[in-house]
Order: sequence, then structure tokens, then C-alpha cells
Amino acid sequence: MLNPEILFQTSPEQYKHWKLQISGQVATLSMDVQEDETLADGYKLKLNSYDLGVDIELADAVQRLRFEHPQVRAVVITSLKPRIFCAGANIYMLGSSSHAFKVNFCKFTNETRCAIEDDSKHSGRRYIAALNGTASGGGYELAIACDEIYLVDDGNSAVSLPEVPLLGVLPGTGGLTRLVDKRKVRRDRADVFSTLAEGLRGKRAKEWGLIDDYFPTSKFQESIDARVKRIVDVSNLSLQSGIKLDPLKFETTGNSRNYEYVKLTLNRERRYADLTVHAPNGPQPTTVEEIHELGDRYWPLQAYRELDDALLHLRVNEPLIGLVCLRTEGDAEQVLAIDQTLAANRHHWLVGEIFLHMARVMRRLDLTAKSFFAIVEPGSCFAGNLLELLLASDRSYMLRDSDSGEAALGFSELNFGAMPMSNGLPRIKSHSIADGRKLDEVFGGLKRINTDEAEELGLVTFAPDDLDWEDEIRLAIEERTSLSPDALTGMEASLRFAGPETLDTKIYGRLTAWQNWIFQRPNAVGEKGALTNYGKPTKAEFDYKRT
Amino acid sequence: MLNPEILFQTSPEQYKHWKLQISGQVATLSMDVQEDETLADGYKLKLNSYDLGVDIELADAVQRLRFEHPQVRAVVITSLKPRIFCAGANIYMLGSSSHAFKVNFCKFTNETRCAIEDDSKHSGRRYIAALNGTASGGGYELAIACDEIYLVDDGNSAVSLPEVPLLGVLPGTGGLTRLVDKRKVRRDRADVFSTLAEGLRGKRAKEWGLIDDYFPTSKFQESIDARVKRIVDVSNLSLQSGIKLDPLKFETTGNSRNYEYVKLTLNRERRYADLTVHAPNGPQPTTVEEIHELGDRYWPLQAYRELDDALLHLRVNEPLIGLVCLRTEGDAEQVLAIDQTLAANRHHWLVGEIFLHMARVMRRLDLTAKSFFAIVEPGSCFAGNLLELLLASDRSYMLRDSDSGEAALGFSELNFGAMPMSNGLPRIKSHSIADGRKLDEVFGGLKRINTDEAEELGLVTFAPDDLDWEDEIRLAIEERTSLSPDALTGMEASLRFAGPETLDTKIYGRLTAWQNWIFQRPNAVGEKGALTNYGKPTKAEFDYKRT
Repeated sequence: MLNPEILFQTSPEQYKHWKLQISGQVATLSMDVQEDETLADGYKLKLNSYDLGVDIELADAVQRLRFEHPQVRAVVITSLKPRIFCAGANIYMLGSSSHAFKVNFCKFTNETRCAIEDDSKHSGRRYIAALNGTASGGGYELAIACDEIYLVDDGNSAVSLPEVPLLGVLPGTGGLTRLVDKRKVRRDRADVFSTLAEGLRGKRAKEWGLIDDYFPTSKFQESIDARVKRIVDVSNLSLQSGIKLDPLKFETTGNSRNYEYVKLTLNRERRYADLTVHAPNGPQPTTVEEIHELGDRYWPLQAYRELDDALLHLRVNEPLIGLVCLRTEGDAEQVLAIDQTLAANRHHWLVGEIFLHMARVMRRLDLTAKSFFAIVEPGSCFAGNLLELLLASDRSYMLRDSDSGEAALGFSELNFGAMPMSNGLPRIKSHSIADGRKLDEVFGGLKRINTDEAEELGLVTFAPDDLDWEDEIRLAIEERTSLSPDALTGMEASLRFAGPETLDTKIYGRLTAWQNWIFQRPNAVGEKGALTNYGKPTKAEFDYKRT
Repeated sequence: MLNPEILFQTSPEQYKHWKLQISGQVATLSMDVQEDETLADGYKLKLNSYDLGVDIELADAVQRLRFEHPQVRAVVITSLKPRIFCAGANIYMLGSSSHAFKVNFCKFTNETRCAIEDDSKHSGRRYIAALNGTASGGGYELAIACDEIYLVDDGNSAVSLPEVPLLGVLPGTGGLTRLVDKRKVRRDRADVFSTLAEGLRGKRAKEWGLIDDYFPTSKFQESIDARVKRIVDVSNLSLQSGIKLDPLKFETTGNSRNYEYVKLTLNRERRYADLTVHAPNGPQPTTVEEIHELGDRYWPLQAYRELDDALLHLRVNEPLIGLVCLRTEGDAEQVLAIDQTLAANRHHWLVGEIFLHMARVMRRLDLTAKSFFAIVEPGSCFAGNLLELLLASDRSYMLRDSDSGEAALGFSELNFGAMPMSNGLPRIKSHSIADGRKLDEVFGGLKRINTDEAEELGLVTFAPDDLDWEDEIRLAIEERTSLSPDALTGMEASLRFAGPETLDTKIYGRLTAWQNWIFQRPNAVGEKGALTNYGKPTKAEFDYKRT
């Protein structure tokens, strides 16, 4: 069966499962999942359970809050269904999905929750989970990604993580890590809570730190309102007007997908893709007024939105592509000029949001389970923010000599902290973790770097000359795409994150790797597995051997 | 087929695969694997490849160096085979092992390599990998666990990690993590190296930071000798005499394994075990002279050696035991008195080694894929170092009131830093990561803590009274052992390590979880998988979908 292509673009007018209401400095994001509006056949989204389609809308809403409604200071996430906030990821969807899809689904939902935390941390919007009913599994994991959690005390509603006792899998959206590392729930209580199918209600949930407070049904809405009012009252933000995020346009053929600045060419038989990012053309705005005026067509926003969409498309719709060759084209000076404008205006809210968005897109790339090779040729522009593409790559190839000009790299301020990886380091530190000294010298210079200098600085992996170039690239592609895709996924996930670990990397590294392991164990997905048998008259039977 | 029981005790006289030579302050540990002396049938240990039996000897040798030969300052690890240092874990052994065995094998070998680094870091012995021939896979991973790596330059010998290109799995003994995080090899070079089946030889290997130096065959031994001499020359250690580690004695029946201080009772049908540690009896030494005289019969050394052996036995020989109830028996004052003696003499080498050993054993427990419940009753002695058993547990149950006396816990100095977890934190910090203040107060007091106080301090999970006690424990055991063993393994691995991550936790968390995932993928272990087909005329065929 050919899977229908999944589209990651949407907008509030098209939402099926969420309502986004803005009232002054307060946004309310209400979940009201339509059970028949699923992304695939074979399941119904009962009880505000979700599939990828529901989460694509949530991700879009959070993104739009940042760009379209910058004045919003408090975001209330709640449900329009009586007595249920959200039942988490739909079990029948999980049970009927391929392993690869399950893994990609969890990754995207994790990124959405990290995006909420990114907004809270960097842009100061406070997220309030107003649990007007039970929040179980992924429902509670959505709540725990918010800053504050309030639960209705109706004698019935609870928070729970029933994955281990009911399904034989882990809470896959960061729940376990956030319990102990974010909310600092005692680990023995986290253990009890995570094995308690029915979860905990108001008083004990608060005592254990799982929620911040609980209110009786009759007082619930007014208590949330009061809390939101306190948040808004202390915010001293001047009212700003946002910019509109219009749909991205692209043209597609059987083996290409071309946006304005990002072009994707698929070589499916050879299992690799070329992904080219183009520098801006012509004069670019230099003041915040001009940037605001240009809005979502400003290159750093549009190009990275296109890149984001292309990465998501590759992940979910092109599983056979194992390697992405990252290329750039255009005038490096244009890219560096943009970086200069961005850096000079970094304290303006819109420029700040553009920075943060670029950083999120690059983190999406770091977390994509494909190999990335950067290909540096004359006419390319791996400079400043686009140099991050090279630094994020598993390897890079830079042409040494060529009749058609000299290849070059270039730094800007943005390479030294504006676009951190999930581990908190600038990508260049994690790339060359040993050699801080050399890099500090570069930071002083910010100059144009030719092939010899790039090798000397340890920025490129290989620098073949014109004569060997074509063959070497071809062989590198052939060799990479011949290796075990699973071994590569594990290897890249290990090598890409040298240095410290953070809440985010714990979620994407430790927790996700364990979940992926469990997602293919017979005890979960075998004929007698717990996930397979959930909701059926048959009961799970385990092989009790511990591994 | 019933697997033969694997024994973890050995001694140099019994070694089949290693020669341990001591000459003054220098130890030489030479690998000379006997290919027919395997732990199971179906494979031969060619080219100094290893199975668990080989690594049990290595672990024993490192342990004996610390206790029996404390004067040793430099340890040279080399091979007695011509042109080959070590070919890593035996592929046919891996190919024919169960998933659970592979995972436990990797965990033990990881612990052995971390023990080498622990010795280097804390006891100052410098480990030199003298690669007189090729070191591939686990062979190079053994080298990279050493402080310095020297490779013979014979035109042929190389270092390599061929797991990804040849076997479709990861280097499973910390190699990837140590490449980028310990040796700080640039990540693009680590990527190339880890996909290059033939590896790299002297010059390039040094340039990339994979080795520290290389020497021609004719100069190899003298160069190593010269390096070792420099290490020994600068050491100003006074010569000390070690203590002998005698074999641990235990009695065993079908469902028990009783050492002097540690008793293991297996309830296989109910899939749980009781593991009881007994406090010392009678007067204990209080001076270092008396401790040295008593040697391996000194309680903190003997009891923890017994505990270590019991844990390894449970892991490898009792896979169906999913839950271990940790119990203690005896006089808490005796345990606290021992801690006082240890703390007062912490700067003596032997006391230092005893501390470090206790810490390693507790880390082995943290990393054991079984659930642990601590059961605190009157007559138990969860105090000081034995309180760590409770703090390491996933949950604890403490009896509130009883006719037979009052249950109590007790702190000592040892709970606040002497026995750190793999993440570097005292176990009590990771257990109750939120509440540093309360704990600091306790640290001032070091008092006897009753049930109410234990609850107040957040040390125990549940405190049922006499009437409910039996039922509650029975139900807790039944409930825990009914859950999916795989989900529990992933959940515990996530909840046990709140707080920072280190090289060690990255190896046991991120890298191991990915390896376990890959170890059950059809691309590795399926009929057409790379591990299955290694060395056969048939070739691996991959499903190239990326996950």
C-alpha cells in the first residue's frame, strides 16, 4: 500500500482539532479532536486522543503565536471535551503503524513539546495547562511541557502515565525525563506514578509535584482566569503587531520539491537526496521596520521555514532516502550581510523570533535520522548562518582547486551562540570540541576562509582537488548508502552530540532510544504483545525474561 | 537447552586468556586468548577475540591490581599474539547469543572498561595500551579506555571500529562516546573512522587523535619501556604491600545462594528474589593496621564483594527474576561504626580502595536491569553505606508500627559523596533532586531516623502499618512482576538517573540503548542481517528504510 503523503503545513482556518482564540495578551488553545478526521484509516481519535495530524496543528499554533501574536503573554491549553483533557497518542494508531512511523511520530511530538518550552524560556510566554478533565499518557506529557499545571477536582479527573502498566511501552514524549528532571518529582514517586494505570487525582498529585494545584469544578475556570490575569498584569510588554505566516509555496515533480530558496532533488534509486539552500538575491532590508514590512518573505524566515518543511517531508514521506547532500548556492556576502543585520537588531522581538526559529530548524536537522554530507564547491555560500549546515553535517567535502573559482567558507557572529544545539553548545564547539583556541581566533577574525584554511581549522573532512572531486563524491555517496541504515542512525545519534547533555538531549537520546527498543520488542508489538492486544478481548502475554 | 551457570570469580592462577606480570611498579597484562577455551559451544576465539569469559579475567586482574599490588603505577596492556592486539568481541559468539545475553555481555564489558578509568582517575595507576598489532572493534575500545595508546608501525597494524560497515551494529563498549567525548576526536573524523572497515594506521591515526603515538617494530618495545619508565620515575609513592583477595565462599541450593554476609533467596515462580545483606557481627577493626591485617575479610570489602557477585549472578544466570527485594539485617550501630572508621582513615590507600569498590558495586546495582524494592523492617540496618541500597531502589517500603520494635534508617558521612552514582551525584541527591535543603539539615545531624521522619524527609515511598504490611508487600511484588519486563527496563533506566549526564551515563544510557535497539533489528540479526551473515558466503541484505 502506498502511504498518502503527509503535509506539515496548516493554518488556524484549516484546524480540525484545535481552536485558537486570542484575547489581548491571552491565547486559549482548546483541544477538540474530531474522531473521524484521522491521518490514516483504521482508528478513531476518541477522547481527545491524537495522531500526527493533531500534533501538526498544535505545532503550527505555537509557531503562529510567536510570529503572529507576539503580544500574547499567557497561553492556556485546555480541552472542549467534558471530563477529558487528552487521552494521549491514539493506541490503535500506534498499534497499526510501522516501527519507522511510530519513531518519527514520537520525534515530531517531542519537538512540538520542546518548542513550547523554547517559547516559554526564550520568548517569555507562559503556558498554562488547564486540565478540565483527565490527562493521561501523552495528554499528561503535553501538560508537563507547560509551565504550570492545574487539574479540576471533580472526584474523577486524574493525571496518569499508563503506558508501562497498560501498553508495555514507555511514555514516549519526554514524560519520564520531565518528571524527574523538570518537575523534580522524587524518583521513587515517579516510579509509582509511572506504573499506576489510573494515575493520581488532585490532592496527592499536588503533593507529589505532578500538578501545581487543583480546583473544584465550580471554581475551575475562575481560578485559571485569576492565574492568567496575574501573569498578564505583571507583564510590561508594549503591544506589538505580528507578521502573518503565509503558506509556503513549492513545485513538485516525481523526484523534486522546489521552494523559492530550498530545492530538494531525490535520487531514490541511489537512496540519496540533494538539498540546496539558495542565498537571497538582491538588496535585503537593514532596519527592523523594513524587516517587519517584508514579514515572512524576509529570507532568514522564509528559507528556514522551507528548510524545516523539506526536512519533515524527508523524514516521514521519504524513508528510503538515507543520505542528504547539503549544498548552498549564491552570494556569501549576502548571507553575511543578513547575519549582520540580524545581530545588530537582536533585541527586537521579531529578529529574536527569527533567530530562535533558525535555531529550532537546525536542531530538527541534528535530530533527523539521515546522514548529512555538506558539499562545498565554488559558487556555494556556506557562510554565517548557512555555515551551520556544514557544521551540522556528519562530514563535509570541499573542492580544493577549480577552474570555475575558489570555494570558501565564512563565519559570522551567529556561529558562536545564536543557534545552539540541543546540548546547549554552539554547533562549532560540538563539532570540534577539542580545539577551542583556534576557534576563538576565528571568532576574532570572521573572515573568508579558503580550502587550506578550512582544513587547518578542522572545518572540513576532505578536500579533494578537481581531478578527484566527482569520483570521490560519487564513491562517498555509494559507500554511505550501502551501510546498515539502523547502525547509521545509532552511530550518528551518538557522534552528533559530543559534550554536555541537557533535558532535551536526554529526551532525544536516552529516553527515545529506549522507547525505540521497546517499540520493536515482542512484549509490545508481537502477536501477544501489550500494544497489539490493547482494547481487545485477548490479553497480553509476556516473555518475562529481563534484558 | 539449559545454559550452564556462568561464574564470575577467577584468579590469576586460573586465567586462560591473560598473563599478569608484576615487576616493581609496573604491571603487564598480556592478552593471549586460547581459542578453544570458550564459555559456550559454537565459536572459536581466534585473533584474540573475546567472549564474556575473557572479560571476567580482565575485570579480575584490574581488581587485583588495586588490592593486591597497590605499588603498581603503570599498567601495560598488550598482546602475546604476533601482529594482532585484539580483534574485539567474537562475532560468532554474538551471532549465536540471545538478545538478553548480548546486552548483558556488553554491560559487563562496559563496566570493566569504566573500572579501568576509575582506577586511573582515583587511584592514579596509568594504563598504557601497547598495541603491538591491529586493534579492531572491542580491541580498540579496550585501548581507548586506557590513558595512552601506542601503535606499532609495521606497515599493516591499524586501529579500527568496523562494527558499522561490517556487522551493521555499533561499537558496543563505549567506543563512539569515548571517541568524541574522551579523546575529543572531531565528529566528522569520528564518522569517517567509524565507517572505515580497515581503520587507520600510524600517521593518520595519530593526526586524528585516535592514538597518542606510533613506533616502528624495531623500536616498539623500547619506546613503551621508556614511556613506562617516565611514569614510574615521577611517581613518589612509597612502596605498600597489598592484601590478598581470596575466593568468595557460598553455599547454594536450587533456590538460594548464601555467602557469609549476603543471602539470596529466589522465588522463581513469582519472579522475584530476596537479597539480604547482613551487618557485621562483633567488634570491628578501628585502625588501618587492623584493617590491613584482616584484609579481604574486613566487612566492607567482603560484604560488597559478595553483593557484586550476587548481582552478576542475578543478571546473567537468573533472567526470569524481574524484581529484587533488598533487605538488611543486623545492628545499624555496627554499620555506622564501620563508616566512621572508613571516613576517619579515608586517606589510607586500602581504605580508599575499599570506598571505591563499594561505589563501583553500587553503580553495578544502579545499572542492573531488575526492579529493586527496599524493605525496611525492625531488625533491619539501612544505615550509612547500607542506606545506599535503599537510595538505589526504585521504591522503598518501611514498616510503621510493629510489636517487634521500631524500624529505623540512619545516615553517615558516606551518603554525601563517597559513593557517587555514574552521573557523579551522591545517590541521595539523585533520589530527591528537588530538596537539597532538607538533606543538608540531615547531613548536619547524622541521626537515627524513624518512620515518620523518613517520610517527612522523603526517604521512603510507602510506610504501611503492621496490619497492612504483609498484604501490601505481597501485592506490590505481584503487581511489579506482572508488568512488561522491557517497559520496566526502559522506565527504570530513565528514572534512576535524574540530574547531570557524564561520559559513563552517556555510554550506559544513549549508546547502550541504541545498541540494544540495533541488536534486535532484522538488518543486524535477521536471516539476512549483517551480524547473522558475517563470515558466511551469503551476503547481508538490508531493508534500507531509515528509522
